Amino acid sequence: MRDIALVGIGKIATDQHVPALAASEDWRLVATVSRSGTVEGVEAFTDFDAFLEGRPEVGTVSLCLPPVPRYAYAEAALRAGRHVMLEKPPGATLAEVQALARLADEAGLTLYATWHSRMAPGVAPARDWLADKRIERVAIDWREDVRRWHPGQEWVFEPGGMGVFDPGINALSILTAILPFDIHVQQATLEVPENRQTPIGAEIALSGNVRAVFDWRHEGEQTWRIEVDTDAGRLTLSEGGHRLTIDGAEQGPAAGGAPIPGEYPALYARMAELVGAGASDVDLAPMIHVADAMTLGRRETARPFEF
Amino acid sequence: MRDIALVGIGKIATDQHVPALAASEDWRLVATVSRSGTVEGVEAFTDFDAFLEGRPEVGTVSLCLPPVPRYAYAEAALRAGRHVMLEKPPGATLAEVQALARLADEAGLTLYATWHSRMAPGVAPARDWLADKRIERVAIDWREDVRRWHPGQEWVFEPGGMGVFDPGINALSILTAILPFDIHVQQATLEVPENRQTPIGAEIALSGNVRAVFDWRHEGEQTWRIEVDTDAGRLTLSEGGHRLTIDGAEQGPAAGGAPIPGEYPALYARMAELVGAGASDVDLAPMIHVADAMTLGRRETARPFEF
Repeated sequence: MRDIALVGIGKIATDQHVPALAASEDWRLVATVSRSGTVEGVEAFTDFDAFLEGRPEVGTVSLCLPPVPRYAYAEAALRAGRHVMLEKPPGATLAEVQALARLADEAGLTLYATWHSRMAPGVAPARDWLADKRIERVAIDWREDVRRWHPGQEWVFEPGGMGVFDPGINALSILTAILPFDIHVQQATLEVPENRQTPIGAEIALSGNVRAVFDWRHEGEQTWRIEVDTDAGRLTLSEGGHRLTIDGAEQGPAAGGAPIPGEYPALYARMAELVGAGASDVDLAPMIHVADAMTLGRRETARPFEF
Repeated sequence: MRDIALVGIGKIATDQHVPALAASEDWRLVATVSRSGTVEGVEAFTDFDAFLEGRPEVGTVSLCLPPVPRYAYAEAALRAGRHVMLEKPPGATLAEVQALARLADEAGLTLYATWHSRMAPGVAPARDWLADKRIERVAIDWREDVRRWHPGQEWVFEPGGMGVFDPGINALSILTAILPFDIHVQQATLEVPENRQTPIGAEIALSGNVRAVFDWRHEGEQTWRIEVDTDAGRLTLSEGGHRLTIDGAEQGPAAGGAPIPGEYPALYARMAELVGAGASDVDLAPMIHVADAMTLGRRETARPFEF
């Protein structure tokens, strides 16, 4: 077991990271760093430098802070010789993540830019099935209620908070993992609430006949679905990649196969592998498509939004 | 001499590409493709496919179209086995340029994403002088009159047209060529005219104590200046990289040195080198900083703009 510290004890840490670490055979959570959040039974720091100085033997840190403040922590951790795991998106800018990757590389440390949705159980089988199909059309439908999933998190609508691309990038992380060809944004419409900086809705057309609709104002059934029409039928990934059907037939886990871990347990298992192998894993493709949509998108003003 | 075709005969082609090719010892301009523009004495096509079919022996095409339509031409040219040279910025999205680079690589063709300002005569000496200095502060001041340099070019204010980043990316192309360390955008303010989609002004703070001001509403003396304060004095690149001073002292070309070519003659000489060597040159750094500023920037509404 390796020691790890968790930085940024907010909703995602409490909901996902803490239980995944508690169940992990690879990791032992020995410290947290957070202004206010703590984990019972684990030493709590409020200052990151104090942690780095006080616990030099903790070789790995996992950063669950929002993207804008995250870079400074990642840089300090790498400069202090720690391996670093980054929540998605891996940063507020592409260039800062490239800089971190270079730092990690020069220091011989692991940097892992995680994409939790890629670990959903339908994703790898979908990629394998699509590998030899002719893909005719892809439709992404990603609609959820921001009030339910990000209650009161004002930062998502501040510059760098990404708005509806915060969930949308999960769809793009799956898409770029399952398609057997490169894609690029061709056109985008961004709906930005009059009183906010980031989009609450987006429609994107990508090459390869890919269309995506992201909506953060959806109060009914929460929808995270990717449909792929091929010469061999329709593949549907729904529930954010947790359910896979081909022409309507459920594709369950293979009989006799190993049980499939949850997304976050799988991320931490992968991080243990990377640290063991002295490797990094930094794939910027999902973030590049968001930056391209933000650069190329036509902005339309939407109704003001309040939580 | 190699044959080359010029695609998109607008202002930049007429002002820069045509004279550079006329004076080149490497290239012979044998065809143009443009809806309306032509070059006297050169076969003119209006349709790109007709050119590709009609002139299979022309091994290289140089694309001077605006960034949004450019990708389709570049892809078609590479698929038809032609080397491709791209005006700046090399595309409307990062992902499309990465896709072109992969296509060129797989086909053994040259792709050259040009940055003409990097060829200004002060740039290489500035890079060499800065290589061993401690850099304390960088100030970029890039102010010009869009009506003078892009008269009536409505596309610059359409999505993908980049707005003031169209000139600003020239500054970023120089900056990323002369600084001996990585930088990333930390904060940006984008002034977008009420009736337009892209910024007419921008202020950007980057790591390394770099500040940039881009303004497209500047009617007085046109200013394209980068000031770098170091432990060994102040380096100033002005006139878009054409004039270099160190602590106020002019740095001329070395006595007895070879004459320095203009920016576009230097680009075409470099393209000839790349084709000869079977190599590509695709540096996305300037474009990544623009995408980062567009993603992270706070938008403010500016007065409506008409040409």
